[in-house]
Amino acid sequence: MGRTVYTAEHEEFRLAIRRFLQREALPSYSKWERQGYVDPEFFLRMGELGFLGMQVPVEFGGSGIESYKNNAVLNEEAAAAGLALGSLRTHLDLVFPYLQEFANDEQKKRWFPAFGSGEMMTAIAMTEPDTGSDLAGIRTTARRSGDVYVVNGAKTFVTGGRHAGRVLVVCRTSPPEDANRRAGLTLLAIDSTSPGFTSGRMLDKLGLKAQDTCELSFDDVCVPVADRIGEEGQAFRYLTQNLPQERLVIAIGAVASARRAVEHTVDYTHSRKAFGTPIAGFQNTKFVLADCAADVAAGQALIDDAIEQHDANALTPAQAALVKLWTTEMQGRVVDKCLQLHGGYGYITEYPIAKLYADARVTRILGGTSEVMRTVIAKSMQL
Amino acid sequence: MGRTVYTAEHEEFRLAIRRFLQREALPSYSKWERQGYVDPEFFLRMGELGFLGMQVPVEFGGSGIESYKNNAVLNEEAAAAGLALGSLRTHLDLVFPYLQEFANDEQKKRWFPAFGSGEMMTAIAMTEPDTGSDLAGIRTTARRSGDVYVVNGAKTFVTGGRHAGRVLVVCRTSPPEDANRRAGLTLLAIDSTSPGFTSGRMLDKLGLKAQDTCELSFDDVCVPVADRIGEEGQAFRYLTQNLPQERLVIAIGAVASARRAVEHTVDYTHSRKAFGTPIAGFQNTKFVLADCAADVAAGQALIDDAIEQHDANALTPAQAALVKLWTTEMQGRVVDKCLQLHGGYGYITEYPIAKLYADARVTRILGGTSEVMRTVIAKSMQL
Amino acid sequence: MGRTVYTAEHEEFRLAIRRFLQREALPSYSKWERQGYVDPEFFLRMGELGFLGMQVPVEFGGSGIESYKNNAVLNEEAAAAGLALGSLRTHLDLVFPYLQEFANDEQKKRWFPAFGSGEMMTAIAMTEPDTGSDLAGIRTTARRSGDVYVVNGAKTFVTGGRHAGRVLVVCRTSPPEDANRRAGLTLLAIDSTSPGFTSGRMLDKLGLKAQDTCELSFDDVCVPVADRIGEEGQAFRYLTQNLPQERLVIAIGAVASARRAVEHTVDYTHSRKAFGTPIAGFQNTKFVLADCAADVAAGQALIDDAIEQHDANALTPAQAALVKLWTTEMQGRVVDKCLQLHGGYGYITEYPIAKLYADARVTRILGGTSEVMRTVIAKSMQL
Amino acid sequence: MGRTVYTAEHEEFRLAIRRFLQREALPSYSKWERQGYVDPEFFLRMGELGFLGMQVPVEFGGSGIESYKNNAVLNEEAAAAGLALGSLRTHLDLVFPYLQEFANDEQKKRWFPAFGSGEMMTAIAMTEPDTGSDLAGIRTTARRSGDVYVVNGAKTFVTGGRHAGRVLVVCRTSPPEDANRRAGLTLLAIDSTSPGFTSGRMLDKLGLKAQDTCELSFDDVCVPVADRIGEEGQAFRYLTQNLPQERLVIAIGAVASARRAVEHTVDYTHSRKAFGTPIAGFQNTKFVLADCAADVAAGQALIDDAIEQHDANALTPAQAALVKLWTTEMQGRVVDKCLQLHGGYGYITEYPIAKLYADARVTRILGGTSEVMRTVIAKSMQL
Repeated sequence: MGRTVYTAEHEEFRLAIRRFLQREALPSYSKWERQGYVDPEFFLRMGELGFLGMQVPVEFGGSGIESYKNNAVLNEEAAAAGLALGSLRTHLDLVFPYLQEFANDEQKKRWFPAFGSGEMMTAIAMTEPDTGSDLAGIRTTARRSGDVYVVNGAKTFVTGGRHAGRVLVVCRTSPPEDANRRAGLTLLAIDSTSPGFTSGRMLDKLGLKAQDTCELSFDDVCVPVADRIGEEGQAFRYLTQNLPQERLVIAIGAVASARRAVEHTVDYTHSRKAFGTPIAGFQNTKFVLADCAADVAAGQALIDDAIEQHDANALTPAQAALVKLWTTEMQGRVVDKCLQLHGGYGYITEYPIAKLYADARVTRILGGTSEVMRTVIAKSMQL
Repeated sequence: MGRTVYTAEHEEFRLAIRRFLQREALPSYSKWERQGYVDPEFFLRMGELGFLGMQVPVEFGGSGIESYKNNAVLNEEAAAAGLALGSLRTHLDLVFPYLQEFANDEQKKRWFPAFGSGEMMTAIAMTEPDTGSDLAGIRTTARRSGDVYVVNGAKTFVTGGRHAGRVLVVCRTSPPEDANRRAGLTLLAIDSTSPGFTSGRMLDKLGLKAQDTCELSFDDVCVPVADRIGEEGQAFRYLTQNLPQERLVIAIGAVASARRAVEHTVDYTHSRKAFGTPIAGFQNTKFVLADCAADVAAGQALIDDAIEQHDANALTPAQAALVKLWTTEMQGRVVDKCLQLHGGYGYITEYPIAKLYADARVTRILGGTSEVMRTVIAKSMQL
Repeated sequence: MGRTVYTAEHEEFRLAIRRFLQREALPSYSKWERQGYVDPEFFLRMGELGFLGMQVPVEFGGSGIESYKNNAVLNEEAAAAGLALGSLRTHLDLVFPYLQEFANDEQKKRWFPAFGSGEMMTAIAMTEPDTGSDLAGIRTTARRSGDVYVVNGAKTFVTGGRHAGRVLVVCRTSPPEDANRRAGLTLLAIDSTSPGFTSGRMLDKLGLKAQDTCELSFDDVCVPVADRIGEEGQAFRYLTQNLPQERLVIAIGAVASARRAVEHTVDYTHSRKAFGTPIAGFQNTKFVLADCAADVAAGQALIDDAIEQHDANALTPAQAALVKLWTTEMQGRVVDKCLQLHGGYGYITEYPIAKLYADARVTRILGGTSEVMRTVIAKSMQL
Repeated sequence: MGRTVYTAEHEEFRLAIRRFLQREALPSYSKWERQGYVDPEFFLRMGELGFLGMQVPVEFGGSGIESYKNNAVLNEEAAAAGLALGSLRTHLDLVFPYLQEFANDEQKKRWFPAFGSGEMMTAIAMTEPDTGSDLAGIRTTARRSGDVYVVNGAKTFVTGGRHAGRVLVVCRTSPPEDANRRAGLTLLAIDSTSPGFTSGRMLDKLGLKAQDTCELSFDDVCVPVADRIGEEGQAFRYLTQNLPQERLVIAIGAVASARRAVEHTVDYTHSRKAFGTPIAGFQNTKFVLADCAADVAAGQALIDDAIEQHDANALTPAQAALVKLWTTEMQGRVVDKCLQLHGGYGYITEYPIAKLYADARVTRILGGTSEVMRTVIAKSMQL
């Protein structure tokens, strides 16, 4: 059904970003997949055209757009083009809100221009090798020593971690024996050129091949207190605050990817014959794709409501959890069905559906697993 | 998430209808279930309060509301109260649009006052014992003879057929050998007191116990030409035109019933203990209900979009098919999971969940099966 | 695939029982459904022909067959004939093992002849209105007073409870404040004609209409100590011992019912046309039924292994839980799909599929819910 | 439940093959994955130890074992070790039966020694770039010219195609305008060193990374008539005959892989903590894994029946289709659930579950898609 969430301006922006991605990303994507990361030039080019500074306040060189809708469009178009640009998403949708909300003016002045130009890409490091999604279990320490924090520890699953100029690292500033495991977490924006900061091996993933996901380790890294985001001991609260957007952006991508999978499959089944008939002519093909289309439409309706709510600053973490849970589970089943209709070609990575399948498997895990989402939803239902 | 489809006025109407149903329907519902039909007094009472004439034009004694939203609210409230009032739905949501759109002024003048007062309830008879949903296969004949049509044949699955004062019957007026099977169908509004009109046995159904569903047979029934709705041979086109609303109303009920099932189950799992713990305390309970809540929310978002589209006269039959398919399949899985969480009590019909389960099984069939919906959707996708 | 679990003798027995059910049960089944219980004459007739005494030792008038396979055949044939004979299953598969294993010779002499002749049907009462499947929570008390126990309390979900001559009742003989909630349970075989023994209202269920399921209440019922089965305080252990067979018998019925649903649907789809084609000719029909057939075949393979294991006295409670879980979940999905292929007729109770659907919903709950089964299986996996 | 399909001798063989795989395959497997094929030395080593000649008749240097059970064990152990050895499976389970059944004595004498020693690995080429699973659409031609056939055309999805010494190629020997599309197919065993025989690029697949799957092209390849398997025009019949075993072997691997996934996940959930508790302690983990275990057990029961039937030469193509359909669909759902319980690590390819997931996606497609299997099953049900 017709979407009402976007204005004509948003649709113009959609065309612009679509053309940009087709021109600047698609031709290089295979190379990025082989090397495991996106060329920095791509981000510089995005910066030049103003795509990285959309939400950056005007006084710091950006466009100062408050609405999240342009970001939503950008994510939809990337997914629709089959581009899994995790480090871009991290920069714009995950890191930006922390800087905008909790960085002080001195920091904004220092960081936002390079943030918006693409010269300083950012990442965020939360998960540790042994703690999973459980923030309370974080063991990377930041010990205050005069004007600096001395950071030791390791992080994993850091999207965009290899090429980030600055990484937001969640550290423990309280003693580990502190009973309140959630207090005592502090957010530091660490310069990745600092001595002792090592970007470890890139993790080989099932999909998301063009996205560098790596381990980071910190060996007596000195971080100026001036690079602390917000107050000491408040990171848990800060992280919670951005949860709706973190979940929403994954959900937006999930629906757009599922939609793309269906479109590809409709095309494929028209062009491909089995037993002398185009696959599209079989009742099973029709029924499977009708179910997929219905699933995508339900996801779209849910997402559009959520985008409106988010722009009205009214999307709760539990609502966002619901939207992420539902849309990513839907993406999983839709993409699987679409791959199946491709037969053997669905298993060959040069076919878009194979990549969509491999990329899709992470969305039920990333940014909080479906199990965590269910826990959050249940709590909001007083269960 | 917050619904934006209704205004404050609609919510006032919701309260009024809720109070009415609690006062006038709930206390008698068990009796209606046992007897297999709703007491005619209930409809008279609805008529008195103006609930049957909401969309009837002012000049014929109604309120002349063009929006469908009040009807939507009425269906939601009936479902939320656990009332399966199929014959009411038939009267207001299925039959009314035919009269409003295709009846002439003389007919409207003759019928609408009693339609709105509840003195003349209506039904519609399409399906025949051997043809199922396939309108083109209709074999009930209406032979023109002077000022009357002489009708012979049989219909089945007629909701509200036992107590209707007038039944819209789809008849074949063309010779059966006519190649174009869809042409030659005509809509007659037959007076149920006509000689030769017999209302057969009521069908014993898995659920919907308070709704009379019956067979009708016509043995040389004489129907005045003045009781023909619209033109001869145009019934197929007329029937197609109301498909969006027919599908939408089932979908609205499906979502409202699924929501009710979840609410009941949340309550039940709080009150019921197993192994010393309230069932609500088990992780499985939480996860199952979180999934159900997400499914209901997706259905709600889809429905609300569809209601807006329908009010803008923009809901296509294929979009309505998608909405019906998705929401009724969702209702099926949600209600099944909710029943399971009730354990043995879920199987005892005095528990609301047992009725919701039995009632739910028909929505994937009624008004076009899920298979027919998939066919319609696929066609709209050029498959 | 060919089943190897049965010998030619078992297949002969199958033919005998099939003929018997067709002659003695099918013609009366609608009547039994309407009245809510099976006529006692039916059981007398079964007794006459030796069907109730198959496993009763020869010295007490039975055939002394140790293998469970004949019982398995009997359950398969009842299901295949569409007969839900829960009170028969209770008598032969649930109660018999307790008498055989734990009753003393005096009791066997006293009870087995009437057990085998059908003059004394039996039932077992475990669940209480507030405790569900949790045996440890039982509150019905049996206070020893000289030669009798004085029993007070209430039971629910008692299959065959209305017409049983003797009911095995699990009572608490230890004080309720006893820490070990599982100890202190005792099994009494209570004569249903005892003063103070009241058989309450029959529960109205979604399905299983010919099976009387009722509440029982005990108001100072005096039960001779001579009617205690086994030792005082040992009921929990006794009940655990028969778990494999209790679960197996439900699983056997589940597979046989699912198979019957598929067979019915194959037939129906051949006879029924939609849009001019037999439904069997649609690819969707073929695919759905192929999936159903595969599911039934997997269930059959699982069941046949389990029957062999059970006859070798090697089926563990966890294995039986696995078999029950899997087969009843399978039955649920298969019967639902089969009903759907019947369209509107699937919702009319005179069609066998509608009854199979209503009956099927209880097997995922009865004899321990799927959730309990999963708990048992997980424990056996060291989870 | 205990498996009865294997004797003590088979279990001894299992231990031998397990030790062999652990010694000779596991240490090199990562290298094979990187290079995209298994080192030829591995097959030579297998040959030396007699593992390739198990079914080769004694007179041609093999062990002459007629039963398929050793092959079944070999496939189970490869899967249990996480090794996807598609070219080995092709050699032993797909190609061997054609040679054994349809090659003449001269050919057996010429080929079997090198077949059994691993010096001549084999492959089979059926699918063509545009025809998919539809044998009748084959367009690769073999034109008879004196003592040779001149072969032109292309094949794709040839497992083991890069390193095979001899490839069984299905060619069309009848003119393409022949009405009977199934007749006129002939099986040629083409020497891969023949001029004009080109092994094209290896296909990059989602999983099965150590298995070379490639395209082959034939440009006027001269194949001696002496290398024709069986008679001209009989290939369709020959191919049909081996269908049960082709399907069975995929099913055996599917169940073994699913079992391995469950075992891995049980271990993982014990070792991994979330929110301070081992994941194994959560009810959701228990329930999910209990369902998986039940699914695997049903698959095992089905497979064991099928292996017995196959050894008795009684497994029909439709039964084998049923077994393949069911077990591969089961594998898909089980492996997906198991990956989910691994959280982020499930997405990292160094974790076994990630490989199991990527490998699993092909089994619902390979050797005939699930859609083809459903078609075959439905036909056998007279649908």
